[in-house]
Amino acid sequence: MPVGLSAPTELFPVAGIRLGIACAGIKKPGRRDLVVMEIAAGATCAAVFTRNAFCAAPVIVAREHLDSDTPRYLIINTGNANAGTGAPGLDNARRCCASLAQHVGCAARAVLPFSTGVIGEPLPVDKLEAAMPAVLAALDADKWVDAAHGIMTTDTLPKGASRRVQIDGATITLTGIAKGAGMIRPDMATMLSFIATDAALPQPLLQRALVQAVNASFNRITVDGDTSTNDSCVLVATGAAGVSIVDADAAFTAFVAALTDVCIELAQAIVRDGEGATKFITIDVAEGYDAQECLDVAYTIAHSPLVKTALFASDPNWGRILAAVGRAGVRDLVLEKVRVYLGEVCIVSAGGRDPAYTEAAGQAVMNHEEIPIRVLLGRGAARERIWTTDFSYDYVKINAEYRT
Amino acid sequence: MPVGLSAPTELFPVAGIRLGIACAGIKKPGRRDLVVMEIAAGATCAAVFTRNAFCAAPVIVAREHLDSDTPRYLIINTGNANAGTGAPGLDNARRCCASLAQHVGCAARAVLPFSTGVIGEPLPVDKLEAAMPAVLAALDADKWVDAAHGIMTTDTLPKGASRRVQIDGATITLTGIAKGAGMIRPDMATMLSFIATDAALPQPLLQRALVQAVNASFNRITVDGDTSTNDSCVLVATGAAGVSIVDADAAFTAFVAALTDVCIELAQAIVRDGEGATKFITIDVAEGYDAQECLDVAYTIAHSPLVKTALFASDPNWGRILAAVGRAGVRDLVLEKVRVYLGEVCIVSAGGRDPAYTEAAGQAVMNHEEIPIRVLLGRGAARERIWTTDFSYDYVKINAEYRT
Repeated sequence: MPVGLSAPTELFPVAGIRLGIACAGIKKPGRRDLVVMEIAAGATCAAVFTRNAFCAAPVIVAREHLDSDTPRYLIINTGNANAGTGAPGLDNARRCCASLAQHVGCAARAVLPFSTGVIGEPLPVDKLEAAMPAVLAALDADKWVDAAHGIMTTDTLPKGASRRVQIDGATITLTGIAKGAGMIRPDMATMLSFIATDAALPQPLLQRALVQAVNASFNRITVDGDTSTNDSCVLVATGAAGVSIVDADAAFTAFVAALTDVCIELAQAIVRDGEGATKFITIDVAEGYDAQECLDVAYTIAHSPLVKTALFASDPNWGRILAAVGRAGVRDLVLEKVRVYLGEVCIVSAGGRDPAYTEAAGQAVMNHEEIPIRVLLGRGAARERIWTTDFSYDYVKINAEYRT
Repeated sequence: MPVGLSAPTELFPVAGIRLGIACAGIKKPGRRDLVVMEIAAGATCAAVFTRNAFCAAPVIVAREHLDSDTPRYLIINTGNANAGTGAPGLDNARRCCASLAQHVGCAARAVLPFSTGVIGEPLPVDKLEAAMPAVLAALDADKWVDAAHGIMTTDTLPKGASRRVQIDGATITLTGIAKGAGMIRPDMATMLSFIATDAALPQPLLQRALVQAVNASFNRITVDGDTSTNDSCVLVATGAAGVSIVDADAAFTAFVAALTDVCIELAQAIVRDGEGATKFITIDVAEGYDAQECLDVAYTIAHSPLVKTALFASDPNWGRILAAVGRAGVRDLVLEKVRVYLGEVCIVSAGGRDPAYTEAAGQAVMNHEEIPIRVLLGRGAARERIWTTDFSYDYVKINAEYRT
């Protein structure tokens, strides 16, 4: 059951983008598992990818193609990650691009491939090729919600976010979709996310905007600490709105703010739909010496199975939070200066339970679906915030039965 | 259900050591929750403690006392960790030592306190004081098995190990007990372990022996990655056997080997009885550039919830192992050189599934209760081995309901 999340009902089309969805029967017949995004000529494209050393074949091929051409098409399949597949996996990713390129008459290197699903199985390229005419025939500007459906794996709901903002007196549109529920601890990007805008930005500036937005969103979430082999996030700027952002000026700042907003909504949607999630947890670590130690503390709490199971049980077992702060590797931490809050309730101060704390007050916060945990380290001005989930029976069930 | 573990039936007494066990009613009435170890005069004592920055009050007091005197008594309670308790917690730990000292007529600083159980609750010192006459009246040389029972918390079985070895033509005895099942990722020591020998060793040499043994045993296990606030491991050498080890010579080497053997048996017992464990996993990482990167890879696999749930399901989902290796932070890892084995079955080579691998062969290994995972990094001669468990419904159940 996702926490405070519903399926998007309307996502604004982005001029210059069309989407096609089809059932290729990759893992199960009759499931929408193939999505193609068509990008108008003249667009720019930015992307960030997983830092997992075992990155998947499509990630390697997408990087190569981005280095040599401007993308005109993205091809995305679910049901198979084409990861851990060695040299044949690379051949298969290239074959998908070549096949699509042949149908539409563009260069194969103008096609970027993306895959998500089970690791280590050969990609059934024949099935993708057979579905190519159908997915291309379906191309349509107003299919973002369907595309969000078409990239789901263990997600229980599609994820999309859309904004219209005024920049330089004109309206620009930003629309994005994302998928992911498990193997989520993005490192430079989430599982898969595709965002488009009709503003125009030169590629280096677009890349800069994407990195800034991703660092404040997809790079601030974790479900299970497992960085995926296939994480990819792509941002396309078609320029169709007639608004050009060429410098790191006020317009750029406004654009990055809107983009970050879209990315945070998508990133939070992934956490809200995290495998087995019953709680949505915000962990805010402040008064750190630097950003890194704030993140170390935040992720140590977020990855602690003991904290996560206590959150599942709505148990204000703050000793587990304290133990996690203590093992986060912060050098010369002064225990007496650390304060921990559940919501507005101070639970820890002066090295122990806050004198004013009552179990009833802690329990009242824990009973909510959305729980903020705040840690003040008392040693500086750095602050970082991440989002995560609890750890439930259903997490074990989903992941113990994933391949059956 | 512990994996391949049964309760110890006989643990050899160690001359110079007596043990008392009592029910103090700390958390639940009628449960053995108080243990005292009496150490003969003239013994030496070594200890290692948790590196968690939020270490518990008894850890702080035990360190202080070790610095100023040689211990004559250890007092150990379960049901309450006296951690996250601030200044009152320190007072309580000191009161326990003073109370015992007054009963037996020794200095308070010759008593070391140890606590384990729930974090953040005030230690009920009155209950401990009330049980002091009973626990001291019960002192007996042949009570190691009862003491192993008396220090249990969520353990389902008591844990003990005993060896008699020949050194310099004489027999020496080594006996130890341990407790721990959750919040297990020891850092310098396990939850609680107490080991004694009747050999004689000067304190610095005894400390060196303990650190060596602990690094090969308690510091190589993890259940959930959560380093406890109370980890402590104590080694006492009474000298009653009339065997003196004074130098780092062959006798010392033999002693360390026997001690390491005892520690590995105890450490593995903790993993075998890990919360909710249904599998006992050995992770062996070889051909690393240095020990640290071998440990980084091993612990990344051991802590991955996706790997752990696949192990619970007996699912040879090797893609998750591969993804964990890839995110372990090993610099410039060459994927094509990495091989991964399940038991004797090669599952990954040349960046993908090994050509000879069959699902049936992987499944056959996974069906066992004890599963060896071996990773060869292909970049050096370093090798490290750790032990861990799977992740089951019962882990969630035990930890969601711990305080209820």
